[in-house]
Amino acid sequence: MRRVKGSAESEEKDFLAAEEPLEIRVEGRSVAVVMRTPGEDRELAAGFLVTEGLVHTVGDIVDIRYRPHCILSSRDGSGRRTELIGTVPDEAVTRTEPLSVAEGNVINVRLRRPESLDLNKLTRHIFTSSSCGIGSKASIEAVRQQFAPVDDRCTVEPQVLLRLPQALAAAQETFKRTGGLHACALFDLTGKLLVLREDVGRHNALDKVVGWALLGDRLPLRQNILLLSGRTSFEMMQKALAAGVPIVAAISAPSSLAAEFARDSGQTLVGFLRGEKMNIYAGADRVRRLDPSRLTSTADR
Amino acid sequence: MRRVKGSAESEEKDFLAAEEPLEIRVEGRSVAVVMRTPGEDRELAAGFLVTEGLVHTVGDIVDIRYRPHCILSSRDGSGRRTELIGTVPDEAVTRTEPLSVAEGNVINVRLRRPESLDLNKLTRHIFTSSSCGIGSKASIEAVRQQFAPVDDRCTVEPQVLLRLPQALAAAQETFKRTGGLHACALFDLTGKLLVLREDVGRHNALDKVVGWALLGDRLPLRQNILLLSGRTSFEMMQKALAAGVPIVAAISAPSSLAAEFARDSGQTLVGFLRGEKMNIYAGADRVRRLDPSRLTSTADR
Repeated sequence: MRRVKGSAESEEKDFLAAEEPLEIRVEGRSVAVVMRTPGEDRELAAGFLVTEGLVHTVGDIVDIRYRPHCILSSRDGSGRRTELIGTVPDEAVTRTEPLSVAEGNVINVRLRRPESLDLNKLTRHIFTSSSCGIGSKASIEAVRQQFAPVDDRCTVEPQVLLRLPQALAAAQETFKRTGGLHACALFDLTGKLLVLREDVGRHNALDKVVGWALLGDRLPLRQNILLLSGRTSFEMMQKALAAGVPIVAAISAPSSLAAEFARDSGQTLVGFLRGEKMNIYAGADRVRRLDPSRLTSTADR
Repeated sequence: MRRVKGSAESEEKDFLAAEEPLEIRVEGRSVAVVMRTPGEDRELAAGFLVTEGLVHTVGDIVDIRYRPHCILSSRDGSGRRTELIGTVPDEAVTRTEPLSVAEGNVINVRLRRPESLDLNKLTRHIFTSSSCGIGSKASIEAVRQQFAPVDDRCTVEPQVLLRLPQALAAAQETFKRTGGLHACALFDLTGKLLVLREDVGRHNALDKVVGWALLGDRLPLRQNILLLSGRTSFEMMQKALAAGVPIVAAISAPSSLAAEFARDSGQTLVGFLRGEKMNIYAGADRVRRLDPSRLTSTADR
């Protein structure tokens, strides 16, 4: 990489956020390929299935495994040995040299009750199967109704929310080096960081957090705050709802549809959470009113 | 929206970037639903088809129209009038009240030679049709080989690149108000802004620019620079390649795969283009070396 800085030029080593495709399969059937930062792939696969409405508790999953990346070895008629290198179905494989999991780009989820698998629940299928077109309202309804609105009446101090970006920045080591990762973090209502995940894709970062929660049997996330490093789209709010999260806060702006979705789903949506400022676009009743007397006493200390 | 600023709270009006679904159809067949900021939908549809490899010149397209959003009116056996409100295929419709195009969320593209339509070229089909799994290299190859590498030997002055972010910021009015839009802009090699498009989705912003170029019969974009407001992923580089763009510059970081793809495709990739600095990750030969004598003479003036 050539670095230009004013009138100086230098050759420098790259530090880039890793991006690779991961094919997610359920019972051997391909359901998605996501471009993701390798790492926590089991969480990503699990979280993806939760936020698509296919899986609800850890008990729904039997296991999540990389497809073996193998060398297939055989001898042809003349006795010569031929090798086929590739990722192949278990049943057709003689495992001779499984590579490390870090090299796996195909992961398979086995379900407790595969017969209940409803691939029509996948968002993209909902989106593209409509034969009569799609309207804004209609499609939102179709998606939203998959997941129950959040009815948790938890509340949070505004000061807790205002402290979250600092906690995120302190924990976000990779971002500092590459500048190329979106982050998603889960906090409790006192502002304690529970888990942080980073990814080139913001949807993946969120799915990894949700997958972490699923695999630890913590769903639904009733008493939690989800913090996003970037902007909030409709899809991010929908994924948060799938995990039951009542409060979503983001460093950057929400879209119009994200705010609308949050209002319809009973979610609290905070945006532009920076320094001493934030905007609350939906579910403002979960954020306690500033208490002037306590603010004064804090300043007095 | 409740705004919290230090110890003050106020109720403010929202200014949010609009996000709505657009269903893109080709010859009446649904090929994608994208969450986009309404506006320049014809460009978005056209650009999407270019970057997916389905369309190459403006001559490939007959027209691009919103599906009429109509009220279907009929009488049942008892003579009662029933109304069905929805977006329906042309042929089944008695148009009574077409809404304005701005309200359309379904757009249909008619092709000159529909029989040549190869939906297998759609990226997601490539990604999900592989029966033997997908590896990083394999999938990149599969996608890249759709589009010829860029062989344009154009060059650009580093000072031209360094001035682009300022030109973008000056033109990006909506972003200033909402903070929620990605931008994509096309420049010529002297740094002149040709077109700017903003969208909640960065892929959409790029597709709109490409669609603008297609509809103006400007493809391939051999002597141009594409500037992205955010980060550069593999998919963004692939879309730029589909339009023949030799130089892609971004305000933020590229991913590892974006840089790898750029190198393999003969594209120039610039990242972290900020202030007086930039990093050149691929195709550095298109960016002229700083000329110390000219720098000095500029400083002398």
